[in-house]
Amino acid sequence: MTSRDGFQWTPETGLVQGVPSIGVISPPTNITSEPGQFDVIVVGAGYSGLTASRDACLAGLKVLLLEARDRIGGRSWSSDIGGYPFEMGGTWVHWGQPHVWREISRYQMRTELEGSFDFSRGVNHFELRTNQGAAKLSHEEEDALLEGALHKFVDVDGDLGRRVVPFPHDSFHVPEARRYDQMSAQDRLTQVADIMTPRERAALESFVLLCSCGTLATTSFFEFLHWWALCGYSYRGCLEALISYKFKRGQSSFAIRFFREALSTGNLSYAFNSPIQSIDDQGAKVVVTTREGQRHAGARLISTIPLNVLNTVAISPPLSTQRTAAANTGHVNQCVKVHAEISSRDMRSWTGISYPFNKLCYAIGDGTTPAGNTHIVCFGGAHNHLQPEEDINQTKAAVDSLSPGNMDIKRLVFHNWCKDEFAKGAWFFSPPQMLSTSLDALRSRHGNVVFANSDWAVGWRSFIDGAIEEGTRAAMAVVEELRPRPAVRGRL
Amino acid sequence: MTSRDGFQWTPETGLVQGVPSIGVISPPTNITSEPGQFDVIVVGAGYSGLTASRDACLAGLKVLLLEARDRIGGRSWSSDIGGYPFEMGGTWVHWGQPHVWREISRYQMRTELEGSFDFSRGVNHFELRTNQGAAKLSHEEEDALLEGALHKFVDVDGDLGRRVVPFPHDSFHVPEARRYDQMSAQDRLTQVADIMTPRERAALESFVLLCSCGTLATTSFFEFLHWWALCGYSYRGCLEALISYKFKRGQSSFAIRFFREALSTGNLSYAFNSPIQSIDDQGAKVVVTTREGQRHAGARLISTIPLNVLNTVAISPPLSTQRTAAANTGHVNQCVKVHAEISSRDMRSWTGISYPFNKLCYAIGDGTTPAGNTHIVCFGGAHNHLQPEEDINQTKAAVDSLSPGNMDIKRLVFHNWCKDEFAKGAWFFSPPQMLSTSLDALRSRHGNVVFANSDWAVGWRSFIDGAIEEGTRAAMAVVEELRPRPAVRGRL
Repeated sequence: MTSRDGFQWTPETGLVQGVPSIGVISPPTNITSEPGQFDVIVVGAGYSGLTASRDACLAGLKVLLLEARDRIGGRSWSSDIGGYPFEMGGTWVHWGQPHVWREISRYQMRTELEGSFDFSRGVNHFELRTNQGAAKLSHEEEDALLEGALHKFVDVDGDLGRRVVPFPHDSFHVPEARRYDQMSAQDRLTQVADIMTPRERAALESFVLLCSCGTLATTSFFEFLHWWALCGYSYRGCLEALISYKFKRGQSSFAIRFFREALSTGNLSYAFNSPIQSIDDQGAKVVVTTREGQRHAGARLISTIPLNVLNTVAISPPLSTQRTAAANTGHVNQCVKVHAEISSRDMRSWTGISYPFNKLCYAIGDGTTPAGNTHIVCFGGAHNHLQPEEDINQTKAAVDSLSPGNMDIKRLVFHNWCKDEFAKGAWFFSPPQMLSTSLDALRSRHGNVVFANSDWAVGWRSFIDGAIEEGTRAAMAVVEELRPRPAVRGRL
Repeated sequence: MTSRDGFQWTPETGLVQGVPSIGVISPPTNITSEPGQFDVIVVGAGYSGLTASRDACLAGLKVLLLEARDRIGGRSWSSDIGGYPFEMGGTWVHWGQPHVWREISRYQMRTELEGSFDFSRGVNHFELRTNQGAAKLSHEEEDALLEGALHKFVDVDGDLGRRVVPFPHDSFHVPEARRYDQMSAQDRLTQVADIMTPRERAALESFVLLCSCGTLATTSFFEFLHWWALCGYSYRGCLEALISYKFKRGQSSFAIRFFREALSTGNLSYAFNSPIQSIDDQGAKVVVTTREGQRHAGARLISTIPLNVLNTVAISPPLSTQRTAAANTGHVNQCVKVHAEISSRDMRSWTGISYPFNKLCYAIGDGTTPAGNTHIVCFGGAHNHLQPEEDINQTKAAVDSLSPGNMDIKRLVFHNWCKDEFAKGAWFFSPPQMLSTSLDALRSRHGNVVFANSDWAVGWRSFIDGAIEEGTRAAMAVVEELRPRPAVRGRL
């Protein structure tokens, strides 16, 4: 099945909207008659919504899952182009990410991962292109460069950030951490400017922007420290947790497991292509109205609407001032992720940074396609922004500029998250001050409505792991309230 | 409530058997009448059994949980002595342990952890007592000593073991890893003997034996590499994952959450003080018979009986040759864990190794008791074995010898796992060759019987995390087979 989402370009077809994926659900709904009132309505079929739906269904609740798109996965989904999974959004997972690994283990998928990097043959170098010129370094030199620069950047306490963020799943355990949320990445760079070489600085800035996809001024320094802490306070840990391991058959091969398990309980009703217009908590029930005017009622509602689109849905009673303010500010991640299939097999072992002049600043060899071509994944963001479908020649030029002359492009694949009306950005990244002022408000209960999204997870916030964390939390809350009492429950 | 398990000694009471714990369950059973056939019988109420029971109950199955002891937790349980949790067995958890952290997060307990180490005041040193003499080092020197020694020990591939065990949740992903399971820790020490100082060697041996609690000759070198990989291939990672973070209110405050949640579904029947004699898989059902002659039948049975006592239960049809052989060999961990409450407040920041002559070889300041005394936790094992309740003066001498003159003992608390008929050892640690020959057999299905125990987990094997991993796996398997079909399931 082909999703409406995403774009492909090849020399033969030109730019085409829509990408095939095993995450597209057909038929798009299983509601055949007036279903009455549900126990729980879940809005959104990304990992938060899938997890919440599955857990609630497993616990015996009747669930209605509403999704605006034609597919599951939200900001994580994979193509099925000739069987090859280009990852359109969230991609990498790691066994140190507790919620996602628990699910990978539970679904017996732990041997279905593969590495993105493969330095076994080919050019096997790191290409650094900055305002100071171009250089080719070994991957060992790449690691040493980034490790050195990162250590200078994060070492606010003489222990590489450990004292400031000792419990990464409890962000402000140390009150001093709040001070670093007042600072931007730019502020921190100013502090350490005197001890960094131009090369370190270019590599570091590119790496930080790879994480936030904002600008240096809109990137919370605390949130970067939080990522660093989650990754075990080391560059090697960052590489391994952030960009190393992915599903051989793509993210959608994982997401579909949650959906199928929920369905198998017999408790799941669902409707795709069903963007919602309003949520009305009437006390005794919550009524949701779709853009097409359909109304559904549930005892509880779990909203997994992302922060950057939360204010596009009319919610009654109105949200708290703090939550509304955070939604109006929004997170800053305007990631542009472009997959390029290129003819050179030798580029499989290539990595590159091209910064700050290029619209794609960080890229790596990410796979080998069925045609035997190399798959390069390229990242850009708000600091030098590109709308990749608007001028495909500009996009191709940005890919080529990462390694001039070596990018014989056979195919481009991407999802423009910035223009996506159901996301308005990629993974969450906080501007300064948002987390210290609004994290609790974003996590708070709103009557019969529970808000669950990776955007306000406490651990691997912004990650698939955080989405599952949040879906788990929401289902737990709702199930504890609605589970039938033992005394009236019969034998099955 | 006071468990029959464990021992306490104070100058006033002398040695007393039994330790109070919030993990003791009263009433010991909720079976009031002939319950008929269950969907699942779960044998054992450690974390594997608790997780399996809870997940099966949540999915709507009728579960009978049978436990030999008077308490939950198996090899992990905490005292409640004046409200203070001495950890009798498995203690430490970490957010990089996926299954246990998922549960900590789900039960909203992520802020209920505290550090074992507190180097903020007092003696603040590491006391190393070896055959070469005694020395006091700073904790920084302690870290440097152990890190250096460990790097020499694990660096079999020029990358600190990463190439041999790149996926720690898939042990033999690299076939070469099997070679290291042929080797003992002693074998590896022989290889690196020329490059280690006597001090490094003593510290390293003590650390390895802290992990295995076997002897150097009975410790699989591969299994140590596996732990190392799980801990992120670093000594700092080992410290943080293995011995740093514990529950403020004790392990039993965590385990009880699983039990209560299972109970809240109305699907859990349970009986403590019910050691079993036999398991008989009759095809259409599994019949379990207790030592007291009670018989119960279930469609499936989940056995969480540990490896070292698996051959004490009659199982029909007989287990495979490979599984039986592994059970007869057993794992090698004969840990002796002794808690000492001592009067010196300054010893809170002390750590020590006393090896090889002492019967307790590794110890750290682990807490401050309600009386304001320091709580020291001490470890010994098979290499210089102690039965701590047999001669309490010998036990006190072993504590004192860790830091002569500084151990003014006010209380001792311990559980002798080696003599415990339901454990016959502490956490699993593999002798050479067991994992490469028997891990798959230990994990395999046996008709209607599923075997689930941390002893054969694939990830954090031997840890609480591994127990939850296994309980999750077992419940998933059984639920998928027994879940009522959607068509016949009505609205709740």
